[in-house]
Amino acid sequence: MNKNIINLLEHKAYKLRYLSIISTTQAGSGHVTSCLSAADIVAALFFYAMSFDPQDSHNTNNDRFILSKGHAAPLLYAAWQQVGVLSQDDILTLRQFDSVLEGHPTPRFNKIEAATGSLGQGLSVGVGIAMSAKLDQHDFYTYVLIGDSESSEGQIWEAAQIASYYKLDNLVAILDVNRLGQTGETMQGWDVQNYQAKFKAFGWDTIIINGHDMCEIVNALDQVRKLSGKPIVIIAKTIKGYGVAMAENKNGFHGRAFTKEELPEVLQELHDKFSQAAEYKENEDLSPFDTILQKQNHSGRTERDKSVRVLRPAQDVRDFNNPNPNGFGENHKNKFTLPTPSYKQDEKIATRKVYGQALVELDDVCDNLLSLDAEVKNSTFAQILETKDAKKFIQCFIAEQNMISMAVGLTSRGKITFSSTFACFLSRAFDSLRMAAISRSPLRVCGSHAGVSIGQDGPSQMGLEDIAMFRVLPNSIILYPSDAVSTYKCVELMANYNDGISYLRTTRSDTPIIYKNSEDFKIGGCKVLYTNPQDKACIIAAGITLHEALKAYEELKKEGIKVAIIDLYCVKPIDVKTILETVGKYKKIITVEDHYLEGGLGQAVAFELRNANIQVECLAVTKLPRSGTMQELLAFEDIDARAIIRAVKKIIC
Amino acid sequence: MNKNIINLLEHKAYKLRYLSIISTTQAGSGHVTSCLSAADIVAALFFYAMSFDPQDSHNTNNDRFILSKGHAAPLLYAAWQQVGVLSQDDILTLRQFDSVLEGHPTPRFNKIEAATGSLGQGLSVGVGIAMSAKLDQHDFYTYVLIGDSESSEGQIWEAAQIASYYKLDNLVAILDVNRLGQTGETMQGWDVQNYQAKFKAFGWDTIIINGHDMCEIVNALDQVRKLSGKPIVIIAKTIKGYGVAMAENKNGFHGRAFTKEELPEVLQELHDKFSQAAEYKENEDLSPFDTILQKQNHSGRTERDKSVRVLRPAQDVRDFNNPNPNGFGENHKNKFTLPTPSYKQDEKIATRKVYGQALVELDDVCDNLLSLDAEVKNSTFAQILETKDAKKFIQCFIAEQNMISMAVGLTSRGKITFSSTFACFLSRAFDSLRMAAISRSPLRVCGSHAGVSIGQDGPSQMGLEDIAMFRVLPNSIILYPSDAVSTYKCVELMANYNDGISYLRTTRSDTPIIYKNSEDFKIGGCKVLYTNPQDKACIIAAGITLHEALKAYEELKKEGIKVAIIDLYCVKPIDVKTILETVGKYKKIITVEDHYLEGGLGQAVAFELRNANIQVECLAVTKLPRSGTMQELLAFEDIDARAIIRAVKKIIC
Repeated sequence: MNKNIINLLEHKAYKLRYLSIISTTQAGSGHVTSCLSAADIVAALFFYAMSFDPQDSHNTNNDRFILSKGHAAPLLYAAWQQVGVLSQDDILTLRQFDSVLEGHPTPRFNKIEAATGSLGQGLSVGVGIAMSAKLDQHDFYTYVLIGDSESSEGQIWEAAQIASYYKLDNLVAILDVNRLGQTGETMQGWDVQNYQAKFKAFGWDTIIINGHDMCEIVNALDQVRKLSGKPIVIIAKTIKGYGVAMAENKNGFHGRAFTKEELPEVLQELHDKFSQAAEYKENEDLSPFDTILQKQNHSGRTERDKSVRVLRPAQDVRDFNNPNPNGFGENHKNKFTLPTPSYKQDEKIATRKVYGQALVELDDVCDNLLSLDAEVKNSTFAQILETKDAKKFIQCFIAEQNMISMAVGLTSRGKITFSSTFACFLSRAFDSLRMAAISRSPLRVCGSHAGVSIGQDGPSQMGLEDIAMFRVLPNSIILYPSDAVSTYKCVELMANYNDGISYLRTTRSDTPIIYKNSEDFKIGGCKVLYTNPQDKACIIAAGITLHEALKAYEELKKEGIKVAIIDLYCVKPIDVKTILETVGKYKKIITVEDHYLEGGLGQAVAFELRNANIQVECLAVTKLPRSGTMQELLAFEDIDARAIIRAVKKIIC
Repeated sequence: MNKNIINLLEHKAYKLRYLSIISTTQAGSGHVTSCLSAADIVAALFFYAMSFDPQDSHNTNNDRFILSKGHAAPLLYAAWQQVGVLSQDDILTLRQFDSVLEGHPTPRFNKIEAATGSLGQGLSVGVGIAMSAKLDQHDFYTYVLIGDSESSEGQIWEAAQIASYYKLDNLVAILDVNRLGQTGETMQGWDVQNYQAKFKAFGWDTIIINGHDMCEIVNALDQVRKLSGKPIVIIAKTIKGYGVAMAENKNGFHGRAFTKEELPEVLQELHDKFSQAAEYKENEDLSPFDTILQKQNHSGRTERDKSVRVLRPAQDVRDFNNPNPNGFGENHKNKFTLPTPSYKQDEKIATRKVYGQALVELDDVCDNLLSLDAEVKNSTFAQILETKDAKKFIQCFIAEQNMISMAVGLTSRGKITFSSTFACFLSRAFDSLRMAAISRSPLRVCGSHAGVSIGQDGPSQMGLEDIAMFRVLPNSIILYPSDAVSTYKCVELMANYNDGISYLRTTRSDTPIIYKNSEDFKIGGCKVLYTNPQDKACIIAAGITLHEALKAYEELKKEGIKVAIIDLYCVKPIDVKTILETVGKYKKIITVEDHYLEGGLGQAVAFELRNANIQVECLAVTKLPRSGTMQELLAFEDIDARAIIRAVKKIIC
């Protein structure tokens, strides 16, 4: 072991501790003890193991780092300060409104790969990034720092098993076993053998170290390079608050910064404890980084490292004042055009099936397409793409949270991901979706089997809350097509939407074609299928209920009652202008949807029109559904053609 | 091994297969091959291992069974038919609208402990039930049948680790390793040693068996009784579709029933394969159950078994026609009255803290109270109850899905559970909450740290979608108090609400007392804090924004502008009548909330008033928030007093 390297790294660890302490004290809050336990590890990662160009985050050869234990954000910012991307003054803006250095990392600071802070998601993001490297034959490594307390989240084990299944030996997790969670000891405490047994059982290579011994850390990071075939976890036994006796291994210091009064003594103690490291002088002329590079080349590094301008001080690239408001969106400036489809006007076909067909067409014009599915590919029809081009399909098994967070990782590396499962099971990934929205990750998501119309499988399989869930995500759009043509075009719209999450809601049963193949659709649009000067009311529907509305239209016509019909294929944002123009004269609307009333299409419409003096009646699912045929259930919930006819007759009285 | 018992059990397994096949063929759909793999296991559970009184589901000594792989519902119904609770005609109503035998089990059939069908949740429910037995010193066993494919859900491992942590040796999982998921091989296939290593690492005792060898199954179930200190998993290697060659171990048969054309041949094959079992004659006079009871007494059974009328044919107790519409609710007919609180009118105290204080008071009058928390008890203040009475507190660590599903299990056994964590992290449990609603489980849930008002921790820690999420759950109520008194009274309301999930939203920062200690609150109520004939508009707020509204009120008053103020402490259901009475003259409302616009309080109000010709403007969180002080963030999102004043001035123009 080169003593120079160890000295430098111990110095860096000291600096990271120092900066974590002063920044949190300045902020008056922050999880400083969680930084202190991991400072040695992060120092070794940033200044020894990882190769990356600090001037160019987009360099496809950069090693990647995810701070899954996002509350240790001050430590991460300290590392970037030591890299030269931030100044010490920047660091002291931690948690301030005008700073991009938030309490938990978000991509507003443009060195952040994904927002973290909801625990247990970072390893899944890392799996996605590591998988992108395998797919693109890049040989960078992805490092993920996990807290021991967050390993109780099942998502960690979802990520662990899939990383092993796909043999992601370019993925390195470091588990910071500091024993203490927010309020007490974790379930395993310092039982590092327990963690080892778990990760081994989940198919990982494991290395146990003392997380405060720099030689052990460096050796472990070297050893990683010599292993292959499996993901690797370094299980580091550490002490929470390491370096400051008053906080070391003590409860009650989780979210607490040292006070300004405590600070002088704390810093003096830190200096005394790490005096050699504190007083180490970096020689900028004879860069220790050169030594490190040499060392790295001896320890399994590849040609790739030479193409990356290996880490060095980079004071010139500070881009603190150039925050990254669009997050990952900036990576994506797509313009994909699908060929005109050729559906026959008398055909009946399920929108879920068209989803799969459209992906196949998209694959022809989109090199970076990836379809992810949670072991229901023959239900969502993601399998159609797999059949055509198996390389573009990733089986994520029954683990929806991991699928979505993995998609965030893949998307951050430029992939156009479409993730699919039953709409109802996406509810399991709500937190992952919420964090993806904070990352401004342009995920594409498809939920099949919407509503009670799925029939006999019963309520556990019915997506009845998905519109409400996706509506609340910032910058999301929601598309809910009713026929083959509109579904096909909606997939094209999603491929080109880069400002947030786009959601496609598909239906189980076959439905007739409504539109000509040449019809145009747009985000924020709707289609007025029927409108007439004699109209008495307007029915707004989407998906399966549009077909019920069309049946109602025909019945009502026979009785001499004219109504307008609007296909609200885009549920978010809503085309208020067209609705207002359509109903201008009679000002009566009936919405009908196969979704719970709360937060659904009807309430979205009612909200938009709240001050327009328009009568709005909403038909939606209001009773807990059950098994039955589609028509029985649509009738039970009063969202079938008969219910629509009743509602029309009532509203026009 | 008593050969008579084996013969009987093999006969029962044959009957279960037979009934699963004919019921799914009759229904035209259903997961028959998933039934066939587990038929031997379920036969041994229902007719050998489990003691229960089929006439009395509420018998506290009954062993409990959870079918986590809910798609094998026909097998479960077949078992209840063989117990005598259902007739063969009943079985043939599978999946019909008027039948309680749904495609996946729900408590509409009153032998079902919890709705299943969203995979990966059953073990957590079982953990809750097993924990209730430990708490109440009942010595019944809880058996959970898990599918191999669903073990990829992280929640399974959340449940596994907590079962081990709490030493639930009364919990027995049976893993049906039939190799095939819906569309292909699982990640582990038939590698039963892999599952064994995982469960061992997670702290379980493990037994590997051939799941189609009745002797091995029975021996394993006996062995369970001799183990203690750890939960036990029986890992059963099985064949999907076992008994019908055309479907055995083949892809493409997951959700497919045999057709009526295939049926004769399928049944003939089944009969031929299991001819001895098929032709076994049950002797009802010399009940084989007596033999079993004897056997059971020899294999570690306790006195308890004698108090349970051990399983026997029970044709007389068929209650198919007495469905259970209220699910678990029927177990709970609470009337808890808390003492009047004694908050001082000049006190400032956070509503989250009052939550903890109210639980302490509730504990004095509620024997069955349990507080569950996801390792943030010092933030949610669940710890106040723990400090008073540690037995009433269950640390669930950072695993929100498991916490909620576990609460379903505990609640099914009569516990009054209050589960708490940060509001934002409850989004992780959305699917568990969704299934709890289908179970009609009266869960009480508290989400703390609502909204941007939490400040510096940043968006990952802000609950901004929780109102939308809880609104969409059937039969839910949402309480969002703004001061100590109303919070205290809301906890009392929750304790007495048994018709579904009740949700309490609490705020991080200290807020002034608004109400007298004697004030009354009710579900579906609101409070008109100010109203005046000169009012020009009404501000509706709740929680932190109510205090901003009160500031705005004072400022506006100085300028001579009078407004009404409504505290909408109950967000679901909404007190429409009081709102209408208040704004009747001027018909102008401004809602203001610390929650995303979509699906929040404002849209709920706007929906209810959509046809009342009232102008409604909604102030809510519309920009992706960030770290900052509370006041900076309230201002940034235009939901502070100044924004309210601007909105009032605009609306009254």
